[in-house]
Amino acid sequence: MDIKKLVRPNILSLKAYKAKEIPCKIKLDANESPYGFTVLRSVRTNRYPDPEAVELRKLVARDWKVRYENTLHGNGSDELIYYLIITFGGPVLYPVPTFSMYGIISQALDAEKIEVPLDMNFDLDLEKMLRVIRKEKPRLIFLSSPNNPTGNAFSAEKIEKIIKASKGLVIVDEAYQDYSAKRSFLTLFKKYNNLVTLRTLSKIGLAGLRTGFMIADTDVVEEVNKVRLPFNLNSLSQKTAIESLQKKKEMSSSVRSIISERKRLFEGMQKMDGIYPYPSDANFILFKAGNSDNIYNGLLKKKVLIRDMSGAVKDCLRVTVGTRVENSAFLKALGQLL
Amino acid sequence: MDIKKLVRPNILSLKAYKAKEIPCKIKLDANESPYGFTVLRSVRTNRYPDPEAVELRKLVARDWKVRYENTLHGNGSDELIYYLIITFGGPVLYPVPTFSMYGIISQALDAEKIEVPLDMNFDLDLEKMLRVIRKEKPRLIFLSSPNNPTGNAFSAEKIEKIIKASKGLVIVDEAYQDYSAKRSFLTLFKKYNNLVTLRTLSKIGLAGLRTGFMIADTDVVEEVNKVRLPFNLNSLSQKTAIESLQKKKEMSSSVRSIISERKRLFEGMQKMDGIYPYPSDANFILFKAGNSDNIYNGLLKKKVLIRDMSGAVKDCLRVTVGTRVENSAFLKALGQLL
Repeated sequence: MDIKKLVRPNILSLKAYKAKEIPCKIKLDANESPYGFTVLRSVRTNRYPDPEAVELRKLVARDWKVRYENTLHGNGSDELIYYLIITFGGPVLYPVPTFSMYGIISQALDAEKIEVPLDMNFDLDLEKMLRVIRKEKPRLIFLSSPNNPTGNAFSAEKIEKIIKASKGLVIVDEAYQDYSAKRSFLTLFKKYNNLVTLRTLSKIGLAGLRTGFMIADTDVVEEVNKVRLPFNLNSLSQKTAIESLQKKKEMSSSVRSIISERKRLFEGMQKMDGIYPYPSDANFILFKAGNSDNIYNGLLKKKVLIRDMSGAVKDCLRVTVGTRVENSAFLKALGQLL
Repeated sequence: MDIKKLVRPNILSLKAYKAKEIPCKIKLDANESPYGFTVLRSVRTNRYPDPEAVELRKLVARDWKVRYENTLHGNGSDELIYYLIITFGGPVLYPVPTFSMYGIISQALDAEKIEVPLDMNFDLDLEKMLRVIRKEKPRLIFLSSPNNPTGNAFSAEKIEKIIKASKGLVIVDEAYQDYSAKRSFLTLFKKYNNLVTLRTLSKIGLAGLRTGFMIADTDVVEEVNKVRLPFNLNSLSQKTAIESLQKKKEMSSSVRSIISERKRLFEGMQKMDGIYPYPSDANFILFKAGNSDNIYNGLLKKKVLIRDMSGAVKDCLRVTVGTRVENSAFLKALGQLL
């Protein structure tokens, strides 16, 4: 597939802004102040951040077994969703219910939205999706897998069939993949150059940093990079992300404990009358409850905040997996409300 | 002027994404990890940042004598330029030479660009600007004042006449205003609701944070806020900006010393044969030099990096005001090259 043909003409003729990084002892080129503040060791607040986030991208590229050139950094993966739609335009297709930002950002950019309901098991409705792809020729398809708010990963076979059928880009948003045992699509762009994977650090202890990544064919990275603001990822987040990602043991131990707590939480909820949790590949569990409004408000009174998802999925609530103590408090409070 | 009439229909019907902030002891609503990393005192990396940046916006609003509701925060003011063009569309008018991002972002968003050359003194060509405003009816006019790369603030009377003549928004980008003795437009939106002012912390010691602000009528803030990503300003930058802005003495002393160094730098350059510095209201000086290429490369060899601006202004280079030691090193190196 010729990626360039998917790009809007105004983006194609645009050249990526090059924030030149010339190493030099005395730097008087960028209208920075020479006076900074001490915050993190070795971060000079008065200097602009590394526009290319080289050290951070090399680090994640190595972890993910892709090349540096196949990565791009965002101020959260949200920003990359913006850039993808700016670069490629609509129509934008996505299943529902799903992460709300696909629809919101499409509307902000005046890109046509096409929403196809998930099937009874919250999996992709493949026939319907393929029919819409043939008819509407979406330029972008967003698949959140594991899906927020349903929690399940979509069938990998269905995703691959959609990638094959699409004449546009397919973006698999793997925000929750660290918590999933299902197949990742991270390196499959080597086979299908219309596949883009999104990743974020927000679900593994670094939500405050707003740091996300896109992994894709270099043609895609090159075009999206043209619309990226030159200094989109601040110095403090870059530095903190690098230092945190190097603490691999701490990272994976917290991921493991959340996965094991998810099991305990699920089993605890399953035992309760009138509570129907859905299996989850993410760090949260969607569950159905007879009177979800009462449950939500009752929990809040007991100082446990969960998310009301009844607007997206009838009678459903979403609980994030917390620490063992937090999860026990949730289970206890929930039990008392039934 | 009815601001709503300026907004693109797809934005008008959009509702701002509300990232609900409900204070609660046990927070299991946002798919964050319960495990964070220690970075800055009191910043919990695992939690999402304050989506509304309330504390920071209250702080700058007080300093600037405007209401909190008249401010909006950006991941740098660059991001707010994006949001303004997304919200209001083109044509986009700006004088040239000026900050390059107005043109780049307009192109990324497929908004028509109209460029009007500055006059011989790098001030606004009022007649030409008014003629173009009448004929082309730009929806957005960007005026960088003090202007990058020329360094001068535009005539305040001319700016006000443009605001009055425009049927669209006029954005006065005051990125360098801290270094200027000329009139600020920060509070004039109270008189003209089509005036927007941009400010940034990037030039006063906090470029690494990527923190900018828009100051405008609440109608403008409300519409632009609809296209803002809910968590566009990370926690570390918010916290660091708050702590730094509270160090008022340190801030204003570094601004004062840069202003005094700018004078010394200007006078030093004026004395040199073949070097013609332009008066500056910013933290940099644009200067003309016979053989600007040679000067640029000669300085680089002597480990002094400045910015080559000859692409925008013939034979011109731009030097940022540094510390006293850095400026002396620059002057000495420059003198040796003549």
